[in-house]
Amino acid sequence: MTETQQGALSAAEGPGRDRGPVPVGSHDPPDGQEAAVLLEQARTSVDPELRRAVGSLPTSIRRIARHHFGWEHGDGTPAAGNTGKAIRPALVLAAAAALGGHRTTAVRAAAAVELVHNFTLLHDDVMDRDTTRRHRPTAWAVFGDAAAVLVGDSLQALAHRLLADDPHPASSSAAARLADCVVELCEGQHADTAMERRSPDGITLDEVLLMAEAKTGALLGCACALGALYAGADDADVEALDAFGREAGLAFQFIDDVIGIWGDPGRTGKPAGADLMARKKSLPVVAALTSGTPAAAELAELYRLPYRDGDLERTVLAVERAGGRDWAQQQAADRMARALDHLSRAVPDPGAAGGLLSLAEFVTRRSM
Amino acid sequence: MTETQQGALSAAEGPGRDRGPVPVGSHDPPDGQEAAVLLEQARTSVDPELRRAVGSLPTSIRRIARHHFGWEHGDGTPAAGNTGKAIRPALVLAAAAALGGHRTTAVRAAAAVELVHNFTLLHDDVMDRDTTRRHRPTAWAVFGDAAAVLVGDSLQALAHRLLADDPHPASSSAAARLADCVVELCEGQHADTAMERRSPDGITLDEVLLMAEAKTGALLGCACALGALYAGADDADVEALDAFGREAGLAFQFIDDVIGIWGDPGRTGKPAGADLMARKKSLPVVAALTSGTPAAAELAELYRLPYRDGDLERTVLAVERAGGRDWAQQQAADRMARALDHLSRAVPDPGAAGGLLSLAEFVTRRSM
Repeated sequence: MTETQQGALSAAEGPGRDRGPVPVGSHDPPDGQEAAVLLEQARTSVDPELRRAVGSLPTSIRRIARHHFGWEHGDGTPAAGNTGKAIRPALVLAAAAALGGHRTTAVRAAAAVELVHNFTLLHDDVMDRDTTRRHRPTAWAVFGDAAAVLVGDSLQALAHRLLADDPHPASSSAAARLADCVVELCEGQHADTAMERRSPDGITLDEVLLMAEAKTGALLGCACALGALYAGADDADVEALDAFGREAGLAFQFIDDVIGIWGDPGRTGKPAGADLMARKKSLPVVAALTSGTPAAAELAELYRLPYRDGDLERTVLAVERAGGRDWAQQQAADRMARALDHLSRAVPDPGAAGGLLSLAEFVTRRSM
Repeated sequence: MTETQQGALSAAEGPGRDRGPVPVGSHDPPDGQEAAVLLEQARTSVDPELRRAVGSLPTSIRRIARHHFGWEHGDGTPAAGNTGKAIRPALVLAAAAALGGHRTTAVRAAAAVELVHNFTLLHDDVMDRDTTRRHRPTAWAVFGDAAAVLVGDSLQALAHRLLADDPHPASSSAAARLADCVVELCEGQHADTAMERRSPDGITLDEVLLMAEAKTGALLGCACALGALYAGADDADVEALDAFGREAGLAFQFIDDVIGIWGDPGRTGKPAGADLMARKKSLPVVAALTSGTPAAAELAELYRLPYRDGDLERTVLAVERAGGRDWAQQQAADRMARALDHLSRAVPDPGAAGGLLSLAEFVTRRSM
């Protein structure tokens, strides 16, 4: 269902487009190639820093961290490495470049952001009882809950270690900002775990939006803000870059939730409708539930009961008829427009903004 | 069994003393009053900093943190506050003073150390399934595992936030050192949880010593080192202060393990022999198990089987006859002597060293 994925964001740019969204400004329409290059560059520069940081861990913990990063199998034999797409490090480096800094000066900050991201993945997987990530068993599933929590704790410490050691004049402000972001990520995950236990009845759209911003937007915003700090940008530009990353992160979350319901299982790697069967309170679902439509009542009734065979199609249709899909696609478009607006204030030159634009396009067209 | 507690350390000073250990040097024999004053001062200066940091957390997480610190009950009503003895903040401030710094300059560093300590308590309690701490229900027991892990994560972030915001020239080195210490604490806790699942047969004394140093010595050493850094001490003095804190921490652990077996339940707050009934691999037990004595074989046999009524006395006797108690007391004395030796190298003036000495005496005479 590739059309769905592209279509989700084409709404941002008006109907009738075939190739998916195109950013505002005179930058060449991205075809994902620029993003692919930036991601590859980010992996190439950040990977040695990450490996060095993880290599400094004591043996027992290092082994588990190396497994998490896909560098080692559970038995300690080398693995190909599948450490994710490096979106966040690429945003740090692209933000530094967009604001006139040198990409290389921000490599430690990029590695610190990636370490924080991985620390939260390790902890979230324990809490959410997720047994696979990046097509491999999660750390807790192989090494136990305690080990996964402790390795996560160590990765947070390593992130701060990298910044504390960095002689760059922005490293202290970056560390303060990253620490604030960790608190926000924890707040988002706390809201998420609490929400999963609640009946869908009392859940408001505001709550789900705040949760999505804290869980997804905060770290993308922080990545962009750190890049700006390392480029020596002033406060207004740092905040604008943070807002750009946050809004792009929210746009991503809307798209991701849409794909979670209407996406092609072959591309998403999840069985069709898994989120609905698990009764997840995703953005389109809560929008549908709070829409006041007849379909909302039907959806609420379906969500109240345990999943039964054949419910899936009815549930999907109810979300759609209650307007959940249209709303989420419109929101994704709005958020993306806001993101571009923030970016153009801090980086009016489309040439300079191009890298960040192509990464924002990339995250909202694929799953991270 | 006050004698046991004092006796444990009197071995450090030779037999026949009545009043417990006295530090080397011309400093007045401590009667605990100086330590009590330093601890009270530390609480008074660090508490506002801690409350401010915790107050900056988002509502949902702040509530749980305030419960953990004993400032609030589970239902949100105010509580008297029982945040522990503030040993670690007191060590930071006393180390700064001992090396000619001003106590007040190191208050943020002291609060950061206390935040790290509390983050590890929150996580350790989840892993160890401990339901009470400081005579109150633990955070996970009230709010669930996920909440306790997330609040711990946030406290680690707050610790780094405090140092990142601190304009003191030592704050970056302090942050790097604190991050290293977090990794070591995680290593210690990881070894501990792994050890609890292993049969006692293969466990060596070296392993248990390393674990105790990582779990207990590392943060006391880090506290002293941070104080030294904030006083502008040179590398050699910072390392000497770290070594002082580590050895004092190990001395404490030996005493604590001895008290765990032979202590007065009325003072320890734990039922008599709880550690033995739970088959804990404490320092005296592993020393006894690896002693090669006939009593070692008897102890191994007792530890192999689940606890049965009446075993306790036999187990206590076996540890004692295998030399576990004498060894642990001698080790506590040796570690304390090493601690004082490290201290006197960095702070030869007994007057200047007095605060740290009295705190070291305090921790090895009571449970922390």
